Amino acid sequence: MQVYFFGDGHADGSGSLRELLGVKGAGLAEMTRLGIPVPPGFTLPTTLCGEVIRGGGLPAELDTPLDVAIARLERAAGRRFGDRDDPLLLSVRSGAAAPMPGAMATILNVGLNDETVEGLARQSGDERFAFDAYRRFVHMFGNIALGVDHFYFEEELSDALRAARVLDAGELDVAALRRLVSRYRDLVATWGTTPFPDDPRAQLTAAITAVYRSWEGERAVSFRARRQLDGGAGTAVNVQAMVFGTLGEVSGTGVAWTRDRQTGRPGLDGDWLPNAQGEDVLSGDRVPLPVRGERGEDSLASRLPDVDRQLTRIATLLEAHERTVQQLEFTVERERVWVLQAQPARLPMDAAIQAAVDMVHEGLIQPADALQRVDPERLRTMLHPRIDPAAPRHLLTSGLAASPGAASGIIVFSAADAERYAELNIAVILVRTETTPDDIRAMRSARGIITSRGGLTSHAAVVTRQMGRPSVVGCRRMHVDAQRRRLSVGEVELRQGDPITIDGDSGEVFLGELRLVPPRLTDAYDTLMAWADGFRGVQIRSNADSAVDAGFARQLGAAGIGLVRTEHMFFKHNRINVMREVILAQSAEQRRRALEVLRPFQVEDFVELFEVMDGLPVTVRLLDPPLHEFLPQRTEDLEELGARMGISARDVRRIATNLRELNPMLGHRGCRLAISYPEIYDMQATAVFEAMALARARGIDVQAELLIPLVSDPEELRWLRERILALYEPWREQPGMPERPQIGSMIEVARACLMAGELARQSDFLSFGTNDLTQSVYGLSRDDAAAFLPAYLDAGIFEDNPFAVLDVAGVGALIELAVQRARAANPAIRIGLCGEQGGDPRSVAWLQNGVVDYISCSPYRVPVARLAAGQSGARLRS
Amino acid sequence: MQVYFFGDGHADGSGSLRELLGVKGAGLAEMTRLGIPVPPGFTLPTTLCGEVIRGGGLPAELDTPLDVAIARLERAAGRRFGDRDDPLLLSVRSGAAAPMPGAMATILNVGLNDETVEGLARQSGDERFAFDAYRRFVHMFGNIALGVDHFYFEEELSDALRAARVLDAGELDVAALRRLVSRYRDLVATWGTTPFPDDPRAQLTAAITAVYRSWEGERAVSFRARRQLDGGAGTAVNVQAMVFGTLGEVSGTGVAWTRDRQTGRPGLDGDWLPNAQGEDVLSGDRVPLPVRGERGEDSLASRLPDVDRQLTRIATLLEAHERTVQQLEFTVERERVWVLQAQPARLPMDAAIQAAVDMVHEGLIQPADALQRVDPERLRTMLHPRIDPAAPRHLLTSGLAASPGAASGIIVFSAADAERYAELNIAVILVRTETTPDDIRAMRSARGIITSRGGLTSHAAVVTRQMGRPSVVGCRRMHVDAQRRRLSVGEVELRQGDPITIDGDSGEVFLGELRLVPPRLTDAYDTLMAWADGFRGVQIRSNADSAVDAGFARQLGAAGIGLVRTEHMFFKHNRINVMREVILAQSAEQRRRALEVLRPFQVEDFVELFEVMDGLPVTVRLLDPPLHEFLPQRTEDLEELGARMGISARDVRRIATNLRELNPMLGHRGCRLAISYPEIYDMQATAVFEAMALARARGIDVQAELLIPLVSDPEELRWLRERILALYEPWREQPGMPERPQIGSMIEVARACLMAGELARQSDFLSFGTNDLTQSVYGLSRDDAAAFLPAYLDAGIFEDNPFAVLDVAGVGALIELAVQRARAANPAIRIGLCGEQGGDPRSVAWLQNGVVDYISCSPYRVPVARLAAGQSGARLRS
Repeated sequence: MQVYFFGDGHADGSGSLRELLGVKGAGLAEMTRLGIPVPPGFTLPTTLCGEVIRGGGLPAELDTPLDVAIARLERAAGRRFGDRDDPLLLSVRSGAAAPMPGAMATILNVGLNDETVEGLARQSGDERFAFDAYRRFVHMFGNIALGVDHFYFEEELSDALRAARVLDAGELDVAALRRLVSRYRDLVATWGTTPFPDDPRAQLTAAITAVYRSWEGERAVSFRARRQLDGGAGTAVNVQAMVFGTLGEVSGTGVAWTRDRQTGRPGLDGDWLPNAQGEDVLSGDRVPLPVRGERGEDSLASRLPDVDRQLTRIATLLEAHERTVQQLEFTVERERVWVLQAQPARLPMDAAIQAAVDMVHEGLIQPADALQRVDPERLRTMLHPRIDPAAPRHLLTSGLAASPGAASGIIVFSAADAERYAELNIAVILVRTETTPDDIRAMRSARGIITSRGGLTSHAAVVTRQMGRPSVVGCRRMHVDAQRRRLSVGEVELRQGDPITIDGDSGEVFLGELRLVPPRLTDAYDTLMAWADGFRGVQIRSNADSAVDAGFARQLGAAGIGLVRTEHMFFKHNRINVMREVILAQSAEQRRRALEVLRPFQVEDFVELFEVMDGLPVTVRLLDPPLHEFLPQRTEDLEELGARMGISARDVRRIATNLRELNPMLGHRGCRLAISYPEIYDMQATAVFEAMALARARGIDVQAELLIPLVSDPEELRWLRERILALYEPWREQPGMPERPQIGSMIEVARACLMAGELARQSDFLSFGTNDLTQSVYGLSRDDAAAFLPAYLDAGIFEDNPFAVLDVAGVGALIELAVQRARAANPAIRIGLCGEQGGDPRSVAWLQNGVVDYISCSPYRVPVARLAAGQSGARLRS
Repeated sequence: MQVYFFGDGHADGSGSLRELLGVKGAGLAEMTRLGIPVPPGFTLPTTLCGEVIRGGGLPAELDTPLDVAIARLERAAGRRFGDRDDPLLLSVRSGAAAPMPGAMATILNVGLNDETVEGLARQSGDERFAFDAYRRFVHMFGNIALGVDHFYFEEELSDALRAARVLDAGELDVAALRRLVSRYRDLVATWGTTPFPDDPRAQLTAAITAVYRSWEGERAVSFRARRQLDGGAGTAVNVQAMVFGTLGEVSGTGVAWTRDRQTGRPGLDGDWLPNAQGEDVLSGDRVPLPVRGERGEDSLASRLPDVDRQLTRIATLLEAHERTVQQLEFTVERERVWVLQAQPARLPMDAAIQAAVDMVHEGLIQPADALQRVDPERLRTMLHPRIDPAAPRHLLTSGLAASPGAASGIIVFSAADAERYAELNIAVILVRTETTPDDIRAMRSARGIITSRGGLTSHAAVVTRQMGRPSVVGCRRMHVDAQRRRLSVGEVELRQGDPITIDGDSGEVFLGELRLVPPRLTDAYDTLMAWADGFRGVQIRSNADSAVDAGFARQLGAAGIGLVRTEHMFFKHNRINVMREVILAQSAEQRRRALEVLRPFQVEDFVELFEVMDGLPVTVRLLDPPLHEFLPQRTEDLEELGARMGISARDVRRIATNLRELNPMLGHRGCRLAISYPEIYDMQATAVFEAMALARARGIDVQAELLIPLVSDPEELRWLRERILALYEPWREQPGMPERPQIGSMIEVARACLMAGELARQSDFLSFGTNDLTQSVYGLSRDDAAAFLPAYLDAGIFEDNPFAVLDVAGVGALIELAVQRARAANPAIRIGLCGEQGGDPRSVAWLQNGVVDYISCSPYRVPVARLAAGQSGARLRS
């Protein structure tokens, strides 16, 4: 078939023919079939596009089907195309299989000429309206179909406005418009590639041809290149009867949502303008009326109750069919509603959840469907922590609330420092005069950003909103001295390392680290997450390095802590200096003495964690990073440290130099450190045991697990495990302590995957560390990849950043192999995964396919992972 | 059985009972069975060792078997134990399953007392001999069996020597010796744990007990700990009739080899001393005579032709049985030969090969056996290059020829510089005043070492000999100024980077890079290698970065060049500056212009390579290392470079800083560079094509292959391959050029192994890079591993350094998986491997088990790999 008609409740096409009819054409056909009033018309398919472009015009065999379609359209519209008294006007619009908004041509008001315009004027009773429509048509047609540059039309319009002493074409009177049309037609006669056709049928053929050809236009080609669309066959062309919202106060145009666009609650929502065209609503020159107002408020419903009834019926039909909240553009022509377009509404996250849950309660959809209505990635936008309302606070300064949420951390003044501390898992707030694209990585590393300059559209504001990082910008009273690493507000001066807290919802900045609490979440959220949990095939735990983070994670639904990075604890307060003494120690004995100073702190940290996670597992990873990360960077700080310890400057420098590595990621870290310096893990394991005993004595149900990092060989694990088990001996007899501590191995290098069977035989659990594993499998470091990964993604060599989305073909295959070997060797083994990808919905979907027992991600990714796992679980069951 | 007798051509034990009888006991039994005259005796097994130690003495049930054995021994020896007229004397020696030389006790001359010593004196006609034997016995027995400290005996001996005014016990007369024995017996009576037993049978029991107990002695325990021997059940004890080489000029003692110890050629070889005891040969106080001399020379054969006949018969019997060249210790007692011990001889490499080949020709062994007689690792010792005798030369200086072979390279003065250049594959000669253990890694990196101080036992000399690196030490006329990186000899001054050549065979050092040629190899070597090639299941290629290296490799039997590291070519002469312009280029165009300057050099290098390798494959790997490796290290050099290029100091520093990476091994290198800067591979591929055409025009049979490094994803390969194929279009039509260039992928990260099927589909060949692959699989860098790998090896956590010996369980398993997938996807694929392990015999043995088609190693490892592959091939067939 070459022409797909729709109108009068019948359509040749349907919603499933997107490839053939384009998104728009398929949607119009589907709505027509549903009994929704769309202006009747017909669609010429995408399959004609290439032929028309190559042939330079419509093929001759299309004439008859086109005539037949026009005749059907005339019957449906009750007007005739080209009729001198009551002419049917047509719109000709593009519509490809993938939407390309703004990139292709549209011609409206096809069918006007010097005769029909008079009929339109008579019929509408509005001569000005008719000639304005004619003016627009000559301009659009002349430009798109006949190749006359916009410039000429704009020049003529300027002259006309100047002559009439008005600023806008809408203010021109009929006489002026008549003159302008005549000038436009002269222009087209002079510059057009062919003469202006007065015959409506010839206009239509030329308009369809021009719209098809716009597929190869510069804008369309560059649009597809930018979005990497292959575009498929080409565009379809939709020809529709024109409807007019400008025929008096009983006409108009608007946008409606099938549910409240702010809350997602049931009830029609929207805006409209009486006596207006499509663009008028968007232009913002006139204030629109609500579709439904508060009691007594002026609204579409109060003015035109029948139109409200029509819209309500349409909304009900559409939702019942699409089963999502819809946003629709409509025109009212003399109290009759015409739907021009409908599409899924993009609601704020909490509204989308509310609507999805309500729709289940209304019986419209099933819980499994409700899950698919919510994009897990967008969940983050509603999951910002808040400052504990009860926390005492001292305001430092305030600025513009640029990106919501609260964050606290120590202040840093450079991108380099932000990244360096973040790597050590220290929470930082980046303080800048303003940010630049060079800061992007650092901004991702920071918990929050404040700037002294810039507004709500500044780089800092835009980027932090995209990233979901809290920010406060334009703190004008704050003076930033990045060189000296200081900031001052009046008398108050802060240095790098001082803690602050920012509130991206209020724009306030406070001194010190204020207590943060998780967001208040809606009942609908809880309902949705409960449904997600019901479909999940994998447990979601959280990474947490402190009792505060662990508390958040638990409130956000984490089933345990899958990764405690113990090194973080060494950075708090003065402990770092003790840790430095551990590193510079000249003997095992000296090292052991320094470690003994650290032990009580570790015990305290662990006890707090166990208390918060009462009854849930807590996996403590023993020290992982290379030792040089703990040393000061600056030589003078190093020497000062040495002086305090009674080590010569020269010796301190020598030790620091020896610790430096060419490839730290591939160096002396993880369990390799523990084999060289067993005292470190001895202390940490003992601290865990001591904390277990203390917490148990307080009635806490402790579920502690010890995790050994960077294992590449079963012998490493055996050696360390035996040592830890020996250390446990004295604790075993204590009341309530388990027979044996739970010990597991990280799987974060390729070899550990290959050895997973042997590792599993001596482990209670295994934990994949996918950041490092990805690094090992690709031979690619996350930090250094930044230099070329963008080029890879642009060229399509990598589809995704493998550090963000799990590489199923490579890393995933190795994980599956490891899991298979591990379960075969030890059927009781528990298997987890932690890494950035643990919070990525696509990765979670793959992982829960029986691969691992639990996933551990950062606290605020817990809901994302729960939902993503629920979604894929639901898909697996259906 | 508790006692294993041997003598008179019969033995209860045999050579296969090493665990039970120890190496020595099993050997004595076996030789007795062969009809070789060993002093008769019996062995008490290792199984008694624990019982004797625990029980504090011999079990009572051993009495009767011991009596029976003594009676058999008396019959075989023709003397009686304890006989007053002609006493049989016995030796009591330890002998465990693993040799522990010097670590355990021996007691000789058991059976002497105040009566029997007189009989011995009469019978031997040498009273001095008899009392000297008695003196030694009392000392040894008193010390070992009765616990009297050596100190007392030495004190008495000193007194006696002082009184007699002589320096050595050998000069004491009979009277003095009689007095000394009497004093010794007093000592033992005073300090001994029990009285000295005069009864020979009691002496024997005590001696056997003491030798068993020495198994738990301090020396033995620490020996086993040092060598990590578990030692098995314990030691056995061997009791043998004493034979004496000190009974006049028709007696004596010596060491013989069944073939010439220098050349390996047939014919008895050895040294002996008339009228001497065992230790006398080793002590070096007397000059020994040859077993067989030149015509007319004084020798054992000329003096005692019958003894020579006996030895010849023994050598023939032994070789026929052991089928290896044997070294034997013998004693001649009144023209009768007694063999005390025989063991495989350790000959110089060329001699060992000569003997093995001769033995095949003599029909003693098969070629497959001959291969196993040669240790591939030791092959290197005969494979040093020499300076081309025809090369013109200018002597710089000379010193001691400390380690053989010749080497040339640029001079460097610090360990750091040596390692840095070596990493870039630049040949360096390390110049030091003297070396220390801190230099070991640098010494391994250098092609040769010269020092201005030290002798043939200096650190530099000893270590270079061990490493097989040429060295010249103690160049006294050379002054080294490491600080300023200069050396001077008289008026001549050289700076870091100047080329020299050293000759470790002559001790000479020459100016400039002299032409080196491969060693002259023997016919026997060629024969053996031909046999090895016959058994090989894998091709051996060589890595080579220059035509010179390629020429060596071909002469050493390489079947092609498996890896040409093209970056090496950029370091020659002035090209490095052009390469630096490539790196600092501000646009693709500027980069392309600089690369055009390099292209003719690359073409020239490739043409030379193709000529040398006429008819054999040459695999050219495109640029691999990260760009910053090509930049100068020092800021001032960087700025100077920028100034020449018209780039500000600031900009140059910025570029250099941007290129710096946190983990260069995991960073922007290999094909990742080529995707960012395609111009580089474009130039290199074009240069290869141009060189192919030029060489073919000269009649050379070019077999070029292009190898793409660091591929982790099939898309990378596809992208680069398409580009290279497009570049080839203009060359395809040229006469003699192939239809398509051969393009392959390196497999050097774990992911490439997993993707091997897809990579194989778009490759003509694959090449495993096991250095990087090991790094990827372990998550461990070769450089940084040095910090803790020794601890791992010491603790037995790793059995081998995985960068030296292929990790079969991990890396190997992944290689097998990759090979399987690659061959399934593309049965025509050729698969190679290059990396350090390619030259390791154990790794080669595993690899040729059908895993890969060829192995590529450094030129001088080619024979090692050929032999190792031949050996394992031969083992597979047998």
